Amino acid sequence: MKNILVLHGPNLNLLGNREPEVYGADTLEDIDDWLAEKARDYGVHLKCLQSNHEGVLIDHIQQAVEWGDGIIFNPGGYTHTSVALRDAIAAVSLPVVEVHLSNVYAREPFRHTSLLSAVCVGKITGFGKKSYLLGLLALVDGDADGG
Amino acid sequence: MKNILVLHGPNLNLLGNREPEVYGADTLEDIDDWLAEKARDYGVHLKCLQSNHEGVLIDHIQQAVEWGDGIIFNPGGYTHTSVALRDAIAAVSLPVVEVHLSNVYAREPFRHTSLLSAVCVGKITGFGKKSYLLGLLALVDGDADGG
Amino acid sequence: MKNILVLHGPNLNLLGNREPEVYGADTLEDIDDWLAEKARDYGVHLKCLQSNHEGVLIDHIQQAVEWGDGIIFNPGGYTHTSVALRDAIAAVSLPVVEVHLSNVYAREPFRHTSLLSAVCVGKITGFGKKSYLLGLLALVDGDADGG
Amino acid sequence: MKNILVLHGPNLNLLGNREPEVYGADTLEDIDDWLAEKARDYGVHLKCLQSNHEGVLIDHIQQAVEWGDGIIFNPGGYTHTSVALRDAIAAVSLPVVEVHLSNVYAREPFRHTSLLSAVCVGKITGFGKKSYLLGLLALVDGDADGG
Amino acid sequence: MKNILVLHGPNLNLLGNREPEVYGADTLEDIDDWLAEKARDYGVHLKCLQSNHEGVLIDHIQQAVEWGDGIIFNPGGYTHTSVALRDAIAAVSLPVVEVHLSNVYAREPFRHTSLLSAVCVGKITGFGKKSYLLGLLALVDGDADGG
Amino acid sequence: MKNILVLHGPNLNLLGNREPEVYGADTLEDIDDWLAEKARDYGVHLKCLQSNHEGVLIDHIQQAVEWGDGIIFNPGGYTHTSVALRDAIAAVSLPVVEVHLSNVYAREPFRHTSLLSAVCVGKITGFGKKSYLLGLLALVDGDADGG
Amino acid sequence: MKNILVLHGPNLNLLGNREPEVYGADTLEDIDDWLAEKARDYGVHLKCLQSNHEGVLIDHIQQAVEWGDGIIFNPGGYTHTSVALRDAIAAVSLPVVEVHLSNVYAREPFRHTSLLSAVCVGKITGFGKKSYLLGLLALVDGDADGG
Amino acid sequence: MKNILVLHGPNLNLLGNREPEVYGADTLEDIDDWLAEKARDYGVHLKCLQSNHEGVLIDHIQQAVEWGDGIIFNPGGYTHTSVALRDAIAAVSLPVVEVHLSNVYAREPFRHTSLLSAVCVGKITGFGKKSYLLGLLALVDGDADGG
Amino acid sequence: MKNILVLHGPNLNLLGNREPEVYGADTLEDIDDWLAEKARDYGVHLKCLQSNHEGVLIDHIQQAVEWGDGIIFNPGGYTHTSVALRDAIAAVSLPVVEVHLSNVYAREPFRHTSLLSAVCVGKITGFGKKSYLLGLLALVDGDADGG
Amino acid sequence: MKNILVLHGPNLNLLGNREPEVYGADTLEDIDDWLAEKARDYGVHLKCLQSNHEGVLIDHIQQAVEWGDGIIFNPGGYTHTSVALRDAIAAVSLPVVEVHLSNVYAREPFRHTSLLSAVCVGKITGFGKKSYLLGLLALVDGDADGG
Amino acid sequence: MKNILVLHGPNLNLLGNREPEVYGADTLEDIDDWLAEKARDYGVHLKCLQSNHEGVLIDHIQQAVEWGDGIIFNPGGYTHTSVALRDAIAAVSLPVVEVHLSNVYAREPFRHTSLLSAVCVGKITGFGKKSYLLGLLALVDGDADGG
Amino acid sequence: MKNILVLHGPNLNLLGNREPEVYGADTLEDIDDWLAEKARDYGVHLKCLQSNHEGVLIDHIQQAVEWGDGIIFNPGGYTHTSVALRDAIAAVSLPVVEVHLSNVYAREPFRHTSLLSAVCVGKITGFGKKSYLLGLLALVDGDADGG
Repeated sequence: MKNILVLHGPNLNLLGNREPEVYGADTLEDIDDWLAEKARDYGVHLKCLQSNHEGVLIDHIQQAVEWGDGIIFNPGGYTHTSVALRDAIAAVSLPVVEVHLSNVYAREPFRHTSLLSAVCVGKITGFGKKSYLLGLLALVDGDADGG
Repeated sequence: MKNILVLHGPNLNLLGNREPEVYGADTLEDIDDWLAEKARDYGVHLKCLQSNHEGVLIDHIQQAVEWGDGIIFNPGGYTHTSVALRDAIAAVSLPVVEVHLSNVYAREPFRHTSLLSAVCVGKITGFGKKSYLLGLLALVDGDADGG
Repeated sequence: MKNILVLHGPNLNLLGNREPEVYGADTLEDIDDWLAEKARDYGVHLKCLQSNHEGVLIDHIQQAVEWGDGIIFNPGGYTHTSVALRDAIAAVSLPVVEVHLSNVYAREPFRHTSLLSAVCVGKITGFGKKSYLLGLLALVDGDADGG
Repeated sequence: MKNILVLHGPNLNLLGNREPEVYGADTLEDIDDWLAEKARDYGVHLKCLQSNHEGVLIDHIQQAVEWGDGIIFNPGGYTHTSVALRDAIAAVSLPVVEVHLSNVYAREPFRHTSLLSAVCVGKITGFGKKSYLLGLLALVDGDADGG
Repeated sequence: MKNILVLHGPNLNLLGNREPEVYGADTLEDIDDWLAEKARDYGVHLKCLQSNHEGVLIDHIQQAVEWGDGIIFNPGGYTHTSVALRDAIAAVSLPVVEVHLSNVYAREPFRHTSLLSAVCVGKITGFGKKSYLLGLLALVDGDADGG
Repeated sequence: MKNILVLHGPNLNLLGNREPEVYGADTLEDIDDWLAEKARDYGVHLKCLQSNHEGVLIDHIQQAVEWGDGIIFNPGGYTHTSVALRDAIAAVSLPVVEVHLSNVYAREPFRHTSLLSAVCVGKITGFGKKSYLLGLLALVDGDADGG
Repeated sequence: MKNILVLHGPNLNLLGNREPEVYGADTLEDIDDWLAEKARDYGVHLKCLQSNHEGVLIDHIQQAVEWGDGIIFNPGGYTHTSVALRDAIAAVSLPVVEVHLSNVYAREPFRHTSLLSAVCVGKITGFGKKSYLLGLLALVDGDADGG
Repeated sequence: MKNILVLHGPNLNLLGNREPEVYGADTLEDIDDWLAEKARDYGVHLKCLQSNHEGVLIDHIQQAVEWGDGIIFNPGGYTHTSVALRDAIAAVSLPVVEVHLSNVYAREPFRHTSLLSAVCVGKITGFGKKSYLLGLLALVDGDADGG
Repeated sequence: MKNILVLHGPNLNLLGNREPEVYGADTLEDIDDWLAEKARDYGVHLKCLQSNHEGVLIDHIQQAVEWGDGIIFNPGGYTHTSVALRDAIAAVSLPVVEVHLSNVYAREPFRHTSLLSAVCVGKITGFGKKSYLLGLLALVDGDADGG
Repeated sequence: MKNILVLHGPNLNLLGNREPEVYGADTLEDIDDWLAEKARDYGVHLKCLQSNHEGVLIDHIQQAVEWGDGIIFNPGGYTHTSVALRDAIAAVSLPVVEVHLSNVYAREPFRHTSLLSAVCVGKITGFGKKSYLLGLLALVDGDADGG
Repeated sequence: MKNILVLHGPNLNLLGNREPEVYGADTLEDIDDWLAEKARDYGVHLKCLQSNHEGVLIDHIQQAVEWGDGIIFNPGGYTHTSVALRDAIAAVSLPVVEVHLSNVYAREPFRHTSLLSAVCVGKITGFGKKSYLLGLLALVDGDADGG
Repeated sequence: MKNILVLHGPNLNLLGNREPEVYGADTLEDIDDWLAEKARDYGVHLKCLQSNHEGVLIDHIQQAVEWGDGIIFNPGGYTHTSVALRDAIAAVSLPVVEVHLSNVYAREPFRHTSLLSAVCVGKITGFGKKSYLLGLLALVDGDADGG
């Protein structure tokens, strides 16, 4: 496994600038940089993209088939409402890991359901930016800690 | 973080012996050994326990407060039915990570709801025995990969 | 009425030690002692038992038939999930009073339903340790205040 | 605590005259007298009111703020349907205890839900006229049995 | 059977004045007069009352026990929301017939459920003012047509 | 109005022979004869048919257009399950009155819904064989009592 | 007990000819013959009938009262949709055993509910043609195995 | 097939002692003896166990793999609430027959659903102690009546 | 448009005296005075009424037809439960604007549904006393700002 | 593909005679003739049958296996209620196309669900008599337009 | 308050061109011009934007933080389906007023729920283009009428 | 009818490249070419567009009014979630036919509901690429087969 798409959904571009008490002081760029550095230790190259547009996210997932070996996907608010994203994930042959910064199960009831989880490899929620790192480790072959 | 309880719920004692095509060929003892070895790299001592009894699991969670710094918990079938386990997790001050071997969201609908997730720190599902390892990394201070 | 079982369900053994701001500073032993003293004023002997195990609670309810005249039961988290406890209460000929420390109706929706209430004599919720005392008075013959 | 409003909801004026096999032979006046006598033992003065009118019950709750220290309220059929009564209880600063003569959980399903319980201090159901007495004891400071 | 209460619920006082294309041109007084005349043919005396107040309707039902032999009740909008009226009907020993001018089943879904029907003798809907007359015939002993 | 179809649905052919304590001692033939006699007083000719077959009942409704002026229909168990009967009633131009012997709202919940009521003129339930007579009166022009 | 009706519902006439991998290679006639032979060992005479028509099945149930002592009924697809069949079973005084070839609880959700079970003596599902035999044994007096 | 586990769930140990009018006068020991005698006629050895503990029942099911050829299981109140028992049944390779003494479909709605049925071979309900015997016959190879 | 009824539902008479941090320091009289002054600028005369009684509110709505040109209605807790008020609004020919002080959609789920909105002209929620003013402007002909 | 059954469900025999403004002026015979003529262009022979009886429709589907190559089925009101028809379609090896004259999704909610669609090849709704023709084209091999 | 974003959701660009009998003859440009003129009277500058793209609407909301003091938002069809828009509104610190031209509560049931209302300041529905103006007045400091 | 828009929703651009065993080996371009050729036989010009973006699909539908006479629309995953697309279809005056390649009713439950069907002319599902052709024929005037 060499190339992984890190895909951020709607409103994640606001990270660090808004509600730092909730989501932390890191900007999305900070997280991407931190994660890319971690990835290099595993010989993995990351491409990090964000969009507020459901259609653009679908486009990115479809295109990742051309160059990527897996996807770490934080679908944000589209988690709960997008059959189209589900179909995109199901249609591509790449393993997709669903990640969330917050513990969605401790929030509003409509956040407890995900249309995407059933077609992802697995799901990681509640560990802040570390959710992305755990998703990366889940996709890396071997024992996941470089050992 | 030094001492962590790895708590396995009902039927996990059958791992490796039954349905290896579903759950893999590793026995629970294999997984515990593999995980303990990984933990040592992080300076963490694991205590691994399994029970088919809801009450015994509650007892273990309560007692972990005396000696432990966190819990990695695969509640198995009690995930979906036990308010008593939820109350135990909420009552103790330890961070608890909910883990599952399989992607529960790709299985029967009654497995999609969890009474426990809202009071855990986070949830990791779908990565086989690696779910436990990711749970361990989530509980370890720092960047989670020994870096 | 002479002998009454006071039966405490899961996690109530933590009282006083955990979350005193929620459940008060009294330990379960404190409450049992206080309640037993009150009971003596009414010529009542109490046997106080606690368990985190659904099956043990069923055993206690069944065995109370041999020696007891009534049960004050705080079923904790099993209130909302246990048909087996319901069947135990329905099967024994003793009057059972369901009690809760907190006002369960002001908490999560899943705490608003009880599988047990329909087969109990009555239900008392929301008065802290006094809920037990009111349950005791409800079971005592006469006007309930020694008058 | 000195002055308590005992508020009876719709159809409770029929007590004793109708369906004595269900609700007992005591008239509402009998119950009020019996309860007032008990209250005197605790140095409490009761004002007992009944109405079939939702609006009148709201008026009584609002006015009790002027003179009372707590309310024992049997809301009868309005228990399950009145947001307006809920708002009245929430708006006044007095502790309100919800009481019911019968075990509502052993009756029709629509009686199992209460719009009022969440904003009351607690709830007592199933002990006949004794439910009122237990509600009185719940509101009285101290150990509730004059001890 | 000699004395029957005809009880009209909320907004029925507007009959004839408002929406005649829906409810007909007869005022409530017209209907009461027409019905009273019909009743005389059966030796029945009618008392006709209307109120927009749920509590007043309960009062009337309770008081009818003193003088009446049956009730024809059009509960209007309270049909779908009043447990208190249900309890009043269940508490009195008089036969109550529920009637509606319009076919409630051809209107909004919330009009399809009635909290009252289960405790009434029967229900007649959809025949305009004739619904009252059929209710009268249902309460009259014999073959209902004077035969 | 001269010719009316009285249509009895499934199991009504058992009337009088089975469960007389519930449905009365009259056989269906007794009821039909009694009803036909009443009808003659209003100058109405009745055709009375019964079938346990949903399709036959549909056939009868369709054919009544050829000769009839209205239908009194007791659809029995098909009340709650038959869209096909609903469509038949909606398709013919005849007024249809839905009648039931028992008070269906005091029975199992599945009997509380009717697929047919919305397309009938009105509904009469709970008056035993008198429900049919009231249905007849509802269909007769004029004041319904021969006046 | 001497005469028993074995009643097969819709599509069971296709047994053996269609989908033998699901329902086995036995035709309905094979099953009826096999079952009749077993019945003879218990001194029981069977009458075996099949229909795709709900109304015909109702007719058969009603007529069995004239000559039969019990019914073994596989209602097929009508299990989940027929109130009319439920009423027929409830109306006749014969014990009825509901049987199914397949384990309906392992199939589509709409097959998990039965409108008939509540009025049958019992239910047997999942044992192929043996379900009928067990139903026969359930209806035979004594210890059911010829002992 | 030689060795079969007969497993009784919660409260079944009370059989014969409590509510004999509902469950019959046989004690659980009586039933086990009667059933074991029947089994001997088929060359089957029974092991009969009872527990009120969900975890113990799981243990028994898991252990039966070591020595048994099938399980007759009356899960009592755990039928409706235990995913953990479902997982145990699904994990072991033994055929399991779910049995119930009473017709659960004629009781409270929460008894109409079973979490276990989908993973059992079949289900038998409503025939008293005979339900166990029919379950035994279902598990025995051949035509089930010794023929 | 000249005369407008401002109708306040249950518990709004407590405004200013209770929970000022939630509902502001203005009493209902303050709001009425402030609103009446605003109204004068538009040549509108207001009549301001409050009641805790559902029936009285219905009476006021009906009577407004005699003298008024529109209604600004804050139905309080009756918003969610009163079909009778809905029918009153539907029956009168006046435009009715539903207003709420708080943002009901950010409160308990039962406050998210309104039985009244469908028959009102429009709905304004969340702007404190300004909700009434906006309702007034909505009813005034022209561009609503005096321009 | 040579022989196709065109099967019309309940009430379709009324086409052209009733509600022509809804269903058009063509009688069912007109439609069958028009469709048969179209079929001949594709070398297809049609057999057109109609029944109001669920059982007869099942019989026709079963019998079509003997002579037919496919079925065009308008199940009318049985679409939403018949598991028995679903089982018939699933049991026969013929491709079945579900067709509807009207757009069922623009009608009452109970018409939005179909028990049959899941076991049909496909579904065509909303094009009047053309729905049948499109169903025919769907069953014909090749490009469906004779090209 | 000086700069306000007026944001129009999907299909609002069609206003005036399509269905003028429903939405009025004003084009969106007409409304924006009219509203901007009104705004100038309050010293408010409006920026009016429309998009059919959920993502573009999110972008606009996020960007408004840079220059704006509040948002008047008509989310059109996204009102009922977009968690992503909800998160955008919750993430920005600007007050957002939800407005709708029509009375959504008098339309299809799926329009009665809004995912956005809970995170907006308030909601105004049913007053045509005036809904926007009332939203503007709600956001303007002071008494909202320039007084 | 001359110009028709063929509009493909999300993920349909992957056709032929991914999961050919499910969706066939034809690429979207193949289908468009095949369909365009068929259309020419009917004198129809097709414009074929695909997008993964909900907003772009709305734009296309709106713009088709300028040049087109009808739309064949496969909304893919947006079928089940987009009120905005529904509003676009309802707003334009063109007939829209909803088509799906697969039989959506044989897939996950969330695919059984469509927000769009009620505002389309009709719906065709389950015939692979032929679904588009049938949709074309449905839109063409005349008998749809060139006859």
